Amino acid sequence: MTTIGRTIWAIPEGYIPSGSMSQAHDLVSHEAACLLNAGDDPAEVRLTLYFEDREPAGPYCVTVPPKRTLHLRFNDLDDPEPAPRDTSYASLIESSAPIVVQHTRLDSRDPHIALLSTLAYPVA
Amino acid sequence: MTTIGRTIWAIPEGYIPSGSMSQAHDLVSHEAACLLNAGDDPAEVRLTLYFEDREPAGPYCVTVPPKRTLHLRFNDLDDPEPAPRDTSYASLIESSAPIVVQHTRLDSRDPHIALLSTLAYPVA
Amino acid sequence: MTTIGRTIWAIPEGYIPSGSMSQAHDLVSHEAACLLNAGDDPAEVRLTLYFEDREPAGPYCVTVPPKRTLHLRFNDLDDPEPAPRDTSYASLIESSAPIVVQHTRLDSRDPHIALLSTLAYPVA
Amino acid sequence: MTTIGRTIWAIPEGYIPSGSMSQAHDLVSHEAACLLNAGDDPAEVRLTLYFEDREPAGPYCVTVPPKRTLHLRFNDLDDPEPAPRDTSYASLIESSAPIVVQHTRLDSRDPHIALLSTLAYPVA
Repeated sequence: MTTIGRTIWAIPEGYIPSGSMSQAHDLVSHEAACLLNAGDDPAEVRLTLYFEDREPAGPYCVTVPPKRTLHLRFNDLDDPEPAPRDTSYASLIESSAPIVVQHTRLDSRDPHIALLSTLAYPVA
Repeated sequence: MTTIGRTIWAIPEGYIPSGSMSQAHDLVSHEAACLLNAGDDPAEVRLTLYFEDREPAGPYCVTVPPKRTLHLRFNDLDDPEPAPRDTSYASLIESSAPIVVQHTRLDSRDPHIALLSTLAYPVA
Repeated sequence: MTTIGRTIWAIPEGYIPSGSMSQAHDLVSHEAACLLNAGDDPAEVRLTLYFEDREPAGPYCVTVPPKRTLHLRFNDLDDPEPAPRDTSYASLIESSAPIVVQHTRLDSRDPHIALLSTLAYPVA
Repeated sequence: MTTIGRTIWAIPEGYIPSGSMSQAHDLVSHEAACLLNAGDDPAEVRLTLYFEDREPAGPYCVTVPPKRTLHLRFNDLDDPEPAPRDTSYASLIESSAPIVVQHTRLDSRDPHIALLSTLAYPVA
């Protein structure tokens, strides 16, 4: 049985613009960590946010069920504290089971949308 | 002889917007898995789609001939079922021969186009 | 002494739109393979293009001097034949010395520009 | 204790457009190397820029404190010399402690913004 993914991932880039041309869920400016759990066990995921000038925030905890994906929006994080807008951050993602992680931003400040995406960095 | 690529790849991000500024083939909103088979044997490729709240779909089967590329649009998948629009998904790509996989989206909802692309994650 | 890079890289995605909002060199629709040779020896680079429905084209040959970068535009390839427009392709890049390769597209059909970029896949 | 990241990273793509629709800090055309130091020691980082037709520039020196990120704009580099605009370059990033590096560009020439991002290449 092939193990699909890794258990620690890093995303150095992070920035949620406060402005948006639209408040519709699909077009509001947002950042997402797309998590794929292709395995047979639930993945208990802990997210930590790093900043330029303060201590890290978190952990934020989510579960990705087996054979499921979760496109987790950083915008939606609020426990233990909201993810700040217009602020540079980075994130570290630790999982109890192997997952694969991709980072995406939709920026709709302009007011035309721009997109970026990259695989996260597999740490371990 | 160098082996060019791997046999299992994962793409955690997936989303096909239903809206488009144009229905022209090159400008309609779409997602693609770009597959390169630089080897001497045909690559029999099986694609599985993962979702947030239902069982996976697939396998979708395509063949990439030797010394060819295939820019496979998720929009065109329809057997065993269409790839849904406006729905978060992820994909796993398994091949009988080594291939290289890159993920691209063209989003033309805005109505100006936005692009994203990244290498897929090489699993095995 | 650390070796910086690899000698074979693959880019599965490739597409040069024929349309552009501008013919200025920096804003015309283009694709580039950005090559970094951080070493002490010249890198003799051979590029091969793969297509969906015909035999590969190439090799295209360029040299990256030591301690230099080359942002090679696929648009400018013409020997042994031009890179086609509005056509899906992929590329394989083989170098006599270690290099690092990143893929970028600027699409100005819209007529607003869109960008994508990713590292190429390090084969060997 | 898991080591998070690597000590040498390369980014073959680099280009800072001189034009911008806005001079606001968040919307001016810029390139950034996003650095994450998730470890317990400061990371002393040295950046070298490579060009197509001249000797490399640098080193540019910055420190990323432990448990912090730094979204370093190439626009802001000025010692030993400014990073040129409208010029193709590449960069090599060497760190005294493990870090993770992601490359991002915001291009606002158009005058609508376009974004690209990718992980840097982990050399060592």
